[in-house]
Amino acid sequence: MDIALNTPTRGFHQSEFEARTARAQEMMAAAGMSAILVLTEPEVRYFTGFLTPFWQSPTRPWFVVIPAAGKPIAVIPAIGTECMAATWIDDIRTWSSPNPIDEGISLLSDVLRGVTSGDAKVGLPMGPETALRMSMLDFNRLSAAIAPLTFVDASPIIQTLRMTKSDAEIEKVRHICGVLSGVFEDLPNVLRTGMTNVEIFRAFKIAALNAGADDVAYLVGGTGQGGYGDIISPPSDTPSAHGDVLILDTGATFDGYFCDFDRNYMFGDTTDAAKRAYDVVYRATETGIASAVPGNTCADLYHAMQGVMDAGGAMGNDVGRLGHGLGMQLTEWPSNMPTDMTVLKPGMIMTLEPGMTFAPGKVMVHEENLVIREGAPELLSRRAASEMPVIT
Amino acid sequence: MDIALNTPTRGFHQSEFEARTARAQEMMAAAGMSAILVLTEPEVRYFTGFLTPFWQSPTRPWFVVIPAAGKPIAVIPAIGTECMAATWIDDIRTWSSPNPIDEGISLLSDVLRGVTSGDAKVGLPMGPETALRMSMLDFNRLSAAIAPLTFVDASPIIQTLRMTKSDAEIEKVRHICGVLSGVFEDLPNVLRTGMTNVEIFRAFKIAALNAGADDVAYLVGGTGQGGYGDIISPPSDTPSAHGDVLILDTGATFDGYFCDFDRNYMFGDTTDAAKRAYDVVYRATETGIASAVPGNTCADLYHAMQGVMDAGGAMGNDVGRLGHGLGMQLTEWPSNMPTDMTVLKPGMIMTLEPGMTFAPGKVMVHEENLVIREGAPELLSRRAASEMPVIT
Repeated sequence: MDIALNTPTRGFHQSEFEARTARAQEMMAAAGMSAILVLTEPEVRYFTGFLTPFWQSPTRPWFVVIPAAGKPIAVIPAIGTECMAATWIDDIRTWSSPNPIDEGISLLSDVLRGVTSGDAKVGLPMGPETALRMSMLDFNRLSAAIAPLTFVDASPIIQTLRMTKSDAEIEKVRHICGVLSGVFEDLPNVLRTGMTNVEIFRAFKIAALNAGADDVAYLVGGTGQGGYGDIISPPSDTPSAHGDVLILDTGATFDGYFCDFDRNYMFGDTTDAAKRAYDVVYRATETGIASAVPGNTCADLYHAMQGVMDAGGAMGNDVGRLGHGLGMQLTEWPSNMPTDMTVLKPGMIMTLEPGMTFAPGKVMVHEENLVIREGAPELLSRRAASEMPVIT
Repeated sequence: MDIALNTPTRGFHQSEFEARTARAQEMMAAAGMSAILVLTEPEVRYFTGFLTPFWQSPTRPWFVVIPAAGKPIAVIPAIGTECMAATWIDDIRTWSSPNPIDEGISLLSDVLRGVTSGDAKVGLPMGPETALRMSMLDFNRLSAAIAPLTFVDASPIIQTLRMTKSDAEIEKVRHICGVLSGVFEDLPNVLRTGMTNVEIFRAFKIAALNAGADDVAYLVGGTGQGGYGDIISPPSDTPSAHGDVLILDTGATFDGYFCDFDRNYMFGDTTDAAKRAYDVVYRATETGIASAVPGNTCADLYHAMQGVMDAGGAMGNDVGRLGHGLGMQLTEWPSNMPTDMTVLKPGMIMTLEPGMTFAPGKVMVHEENLVIREGAPELLSRRAASEMPVIT
């Protein structure tokens, strides 16, 4: 397969970052925060455009400060200077890292004090789905160094900002979803019964790269007679056999944006029970798509899909939700689950992921990606086949 | 290129995990800790064998408790039950996740209180190169829930454990280093002048997968006339041209273990300055290899390599170190830098990574992977060519 035509332009116009920063500053003002500190890959990238796989190295922390007005300030290891200078950021403060004695802490506390006064509040994402990408000992040092400034939770602001995507963001997700839809559709021409999951995963990744994905950052799956039992394990060395069901669930990327959907296949043929389960999750997805309209909540999406699965004989699932947000990360806030009352709005990119146990130890999971629009949603992944495709 | 023959067996014998746990428990006892809590991917995998790319989703925290005696206890989201049950762990406690109201906190605090008593100390990695992979708000809830138990820093124990590799771990790194050495050696047959870095990165990843890598988790590089200026940026869309120097630096994986080395190439030919710089970092690496013997420190490695580069006209570098540990992560403790007095011991896997600015805005970086042995080290990457290979 050839590289997809009409590949979107990489990066964003500066206006994208200006808009993100302005929205953050509005919400910061309303929440009484004098600055926000972010230190994880997606948040640093969201405000600066800084895109690098160098985050794989845990050695160095990276900091970005959003002041009450003006552009964000990057406080980063010197190794990142040139890469950050290529973004829209002007104020780049660096230290020579690694330096475990003072890993940017005194530099960062100077910057935070410089953009605040007195006992101001500094926002830091501290809520669900966040992590602290610096050492606890350094965080304690930083907290002491900036006193009487105090950290308060900024995760509601960051969630609100990132949950609704711009047209430019949607274009990137639409592109990678289209690329991977083609890869999945072509897979019966690539796979053969008898291949192991190790071989299948390798063939899938190569096909995705050839089709135009930057990376296949996430690929999980499972194979089993009449159904698989687990979809997060690494690939096995066992050859596939007639009657097996295969699921592949992938998060491939284009320019730092993810797709996240899966497809099921049967090797030759499979059990009626597995086919019925496929039909149930397929119809649950149809109901989910119909429910994915502004004003409905994530809980509504859950109940719409779960209702179809309950009627179809679902014996529960252990995933805890039926889909989630999607964009700069494989999974993002919010979650399609009974307790999530997030109201759907145009521009939100969501996965619908109905999954159910249909026999002891047998699971069936389906997944599509869409963006909420006024009225009906726009599907970003091309709809799966209504019957399981066959691998010969 | 065909898949490498003699692919090592995936996974480890249970004795590997028993030995890791026993060593941890010895050090815990000596440090007065009643348990250790780990929550990041490499540490959870180190003690359990739990290997999944599902960590890409930030939604759910994962916890493993190492008690003073006996096997580790997994406290994990229900979605991980089957994958964890395939490891050597017997005691797997699960909760239905996502559940932002109680994201495993009450379950984990029960487990921690169950394996300790009174005001015992619980180790948690909190030092350099660590992160807290759970929300700060949940960490504060956990700390309150377990009082009078208190958290103390366990990072010296974890560093000591992971720094020295077993033969089984070394075999995995040796394998992926061998696979990628072949990919780099064959690259002049794959690349052509005029290809963009986007195309080069894609071709490299496909070649690595075809050769037997599980993943190319990390790939950075740069191209420039007479030298590149930055090695952590994403690939550009600019066509390569005669006289350009290309660097590719990769962390590919086999069974969860990394290689991390780079190679330089010239398109047709390049400047004498770039060739001289290549010779300098090549010779710096030779000196580093000669110095990589038990008893020497990481600082000794730094000074040995930096001495050659200073004599060769180095104008500094912004990386902050000349190599680091390697294994389950792309970069691990320790660092080859003047302040790191870690003593080299047999079984430590290290990168030697001399890099220098040789002209304004022009950098040359070289890298090899080796394991410290009694006497001379064992090279894991096949030694780079002593002169820059040519891409036609």
